[in-house]
Amino acid sequence: MAASPPFYAVVVGVGSGTGASVARLFARRGYPVALLARKDANLTPVVDAVTAAGGTALGIPTDVSDPASLDAAFAAVAATWPGARLAAAVYNAEAGFAYKPFLELTPEDLDRALATGAKGLFHFAQRTIPQLLDAVPSEEGKEQQHPPTLIVTGATAALRGSARFATFAAGKFAQRALAQSLAREFGPRGVHVAYAIIDGVIDTPWGKDRVANDGKADGKISPDAIAESYWHLHTQPRSAFTHELDLRPFVEKF
Amino acid sequence: MAASPPFYAVVVGVGSGTGASVARLFARRGYPVALLARKDANLTPVVDAVTAAGGTALGIPTDVSDPASLDAAFAAVAATWPGARLAAAVYNAEAGFAYKPFLELTPEDLDRALATGAKGLFHFAQRTIPQLLDAVPSEEGKEQQHPPTLIVTGATAALRGSARFATFAAGKFAQRALAQSLAREFGPRGVHVAYAIIDGVIDTPWGKDRVANDGKADGKISPDAIAESYWHLHTQPRSAFTHELDLRPFVEKF
Amino acid sequence: MAASPPFYAVVVGVGSGTGASVARLFARRGYPVALLARKDANLTPVVDAVTAAGGTALGIPTDVSDPASLDAAFAAVAATWPGARLAAAVYNAEAGFAYKPFLELTPEDLDRALATGAKGLFHFAQRTIPQLLDAVPSEEGKEQQHPPTLIVTGATAALRGSARFATFAAGKFAQRALAQSLAREFGPRGVHVAYAIIDGVIDTPWGKDRVANDGKADGKISPDAIAESYWHLHTQPRSAFTHELDLRPFVEKF
Amino acid sequence: MAASPPFYAVVVGVGSGTGASVARLFARRGYPVALLARKDANLTPVVDAVTAAGGTALGIPTDVSDPASLDAAFAAVAATWPGARLAAAVYNAEAGFAYKPFLELTPEDLDRALATGAKGLFHFAQRTIPQLLDAVPSEEGKEQQHPPTLIVTGATAALRGSARFATFAAGKFAQRALAQSLAREFGPRGVHVAYAIIDGVIDTPWGKDRVANDGKADGKISPDAIAESYWHLHTQPRSAFTHELDLRPFVEKF
Repeated sequence: MAASPPFYAVVVGVGSGTGASVARLFARRGYPVALLARKDANLTPVVDAVTAAGGTALGIPTDVSDPASLDAAFAAVAATWPGARLAAAVYNAEAGFAYKPFLELTPEDLDRALATGAKGLFHFAQRTIPQLLDAVPSEEGKEQQHPPTLIVTGATAALRGSARFATFAAGKFAQRALAQSLAREFGPRGVHVAYAIIDGVIDTPWGKDRVANDGKADGKISPDAIAESYWHLHTQPRSAFTHELDLRPFVEKF
Repeated sequence: MAASPPFYAVVVGVGSGTGASVARLFARRGYPVALLARKDANLTPVVDAVTAAGGTALGIPTDVSDPASLDAAFAAVAATWPGARLAAAVYNAEAGFAYKPFLELTPEDLDRALATGAKGLFHFAQRTIPQLLDAVPSEEGKEQQHPPTLIVTGATAALRGSARFATFAAGKFAQRALAQSLAREFGPRGVHVAYAIIDGVIDTPWGKDRVANDGKADGKISPDAIAESYWHLHTQPRSAFTHELDLRPFVEKF
Repeated sequence: MAASPPFYAVVVGVGSGTGASVARLFARRGYPVALLARKDANLTPVVDAVTAAGGTALGIPTDVSDPASLDAAFAAVAATWPGARLAAAVYNAEAGFAYKPFLELTPEDLDRALATGAKGLFHFAQRTIPQLLDAVPSEEGKEQQHPPTLIVTGATAALRGSARFATFAAGKFAQRALAQSLAREFGPRGVHVAYAIIDGVIDTPWGKDRVANDGKADGKISPDAIAESYWHLHTQPRSAFTHELDLRPFVEKF
Repeated sequence: MAASPPFYAVVVGVGSGTGASVARLFARRGYPVALLARKDANLTPVVDAVTAAGGTALGIPTDVSDPASLDAAFAAVAATWPGARLAAAVYNAEAGFAYKPFLELTPEDLDRALATGAKGLFHFAQRTIPQLLDAVPSEEGKEQQHPPTLIVTGATAALRGSARFATFAAGKFAQRALAQSLAREFGPRGVHVAYAIIDGVIDTPWGKDRVANDGKADGKISPDAIAESYWHLHTQPRSAFTHELDLRPFVEKF
């Protein structure tokens, strides 16, 4: 029987390509990765890709807006990797968003945006922050280990409420508020909380038809590049934490 | 029987003192005012104060997080002042907020913050924006009338997610997102949407024991002063709309 | 010989129309107005307009980027209205700005932008802040008088460094920094410092050919409307100071 | 005679420790580094440290606020490494700043802040942007090379004009404006312009007596950690450029 790993990472959401890239990269850099997403069909190819590359992945179908579902997910993690401590948690949940005139938006559009943007992160953070606090190294051990990290995938709409983006922006603004509060409360206790403003269209295999920036080369964001920036955030020592950064294609207007 | 007034104003929330001051001022400047708040006990003294000063007020117990309750409120307005057009809508709903370490916050704390901050405004805007659009004057009439206005009472927590303010900030960030989206969508159609960042403690009769800024004179915000700024926003011509302003006591740190 | 007035206002800059409108309005509301601008030709019509409307104005050709020139201006004010205290100071200096690709900008473009945006305000504030502090009313007198006020005319470029606006934005960012610092230092001492983000083209008689927002009605900002907002800022009691607000035409994209 | 290197990096300023750390790291990762600073005494130890670690460094005493001095510096670089292209330019100039009540600040305090914050960057960018544009790889070569990068060291005062920081904030705000404008103009042409908000005290050997965050471990920012984040910025592919990030000690209030 294999020994349980000392650390693991957890990633929520694979809808945008970012989750899959982060899982692959963090696995390649040594962490077994628990992958949480609503649909098993989204999980399987990522688990397979991680495994094929020599990494370890555990896919757990989970509804992050449901606390009980999240609890079950972390129970499954604990059963699979008993005693493993949480090194990195990535909240990357995405729901399709309603791009509509305000008067055509429904209360359900708002509920969905708040559920994915804010409530899911709330539940996830309530379950991961205690684990991350447990993983904060002692003064002596701090050179051997990266500070435990919570990274949240934001969007332009976290900074700007554009016309026709009312509900999506509401969810993302709320999410950014939570991330800021968490950073201010738990940073001083050694947990690194970071918020990434993804400002552009992500380049996913299944989004090949979606044109951005007039189809210019590198006009969409490489999810692997996002993963590298997330890894960099994770490796920052506690004397130099980044809380917020933006990521956009060079040709993107901002 | 009295003729129905040509215009009216509606104010949601009297919890902070701001709603009562706005109602009194907008009534004094000529608008009959519909006042919506959860508890009849909060409405009665404000209705009485407006009436005693020679104004017209209609208090309607309403739960703004409940669309049906809001619909009933506007039906009551329409029955009382048939044909009156909406000149100004003020969203000033406040719920007590949870000031707690993040790990002690409950999902209900978040729900409450989002219900008051975001959902209530969403429902209120979906019902008032069409009325405000109806009240946009023709090119010829625009000198005789202030542009129809939606004003939302924000807070410091709309700009900053402080430690221990996670859920309150989530609600206020989401609210600010909605207000921005509304301004960008409906400003060009003649409706003025403004967001006021109230940065300080409001000076209410029932909050006399709450010390702010070491008890210095004018260390709390006068709700009447807020009302004057709201009136100024309402009177801005469409060539010079303010979307966002801050309001704070001179001694407040920022 | 006429008695000296108890208070006066001073306005720097008439290039954009805002200065002239502010002078007219503040004079109409009772303050004699000292008007400082580089060119006598710009001053004369404004002085005449104020006088024709029954107000009092004093035009003083001044180079605000030159401390000695500013000192001479305030000496002239003191000689004309001995003992008058400064109620309101408006910094509205504008220089034409260089709209060019960065590599075509000259060091002189940057110098000019910093001179008007930052240095002029620095010199002006060093001369007006002591006067404004002297005009802060006693606790008893504070109901009879508006708090002494310094208002600075900003621009979109104070918030955003757009391509081809490098030097103009540098000047306006620096200006906003100064205004913020002044607000934080002198607000608690009773001086109201406000910064207005003018986001759009100002509608001036001499700018009639300049098209904005496709020539739509009210697609440019009325300088009289700006003046009304400045007056509102001036009248805010110290319990509810606004530090920053934006002003834009309803059809302006933002 | 040694062959000229294909690429080089240039770093302005070693006053804060950041410049020295960046020079050492970028040299270790393969770039010869030109180091520009006012005083030879500051340059020598850094050049020695880079050389001792097997890297290549060229120290050039330079006054970046003087265009002629900068021109001479780049002429010296071209003479030393003929044909080498500029891979990374780091503007890290710092001047001591005036922490004083506004009314005690002198025009020279403002001039100095603007000279270091804004003018030096302006001159530096006018000389490095053309070189960085020349170094933009062709479509085919873009996988073999990091995008040419200009990184500017900012500070909290670039976002916030605090009391007693008026001139320093003016310089830093202006600097941020320039960095934004450059990013928006030259990003689409393949040059990565990034701005780092250094929010805290930097931990330098010569600043050991300066206490920050009550002397807590890692309460000051490690300049080596800043250098790692700058290197990460440099390595971001053009599909995912970060324009702005913050860096602060975990215990720093923000």
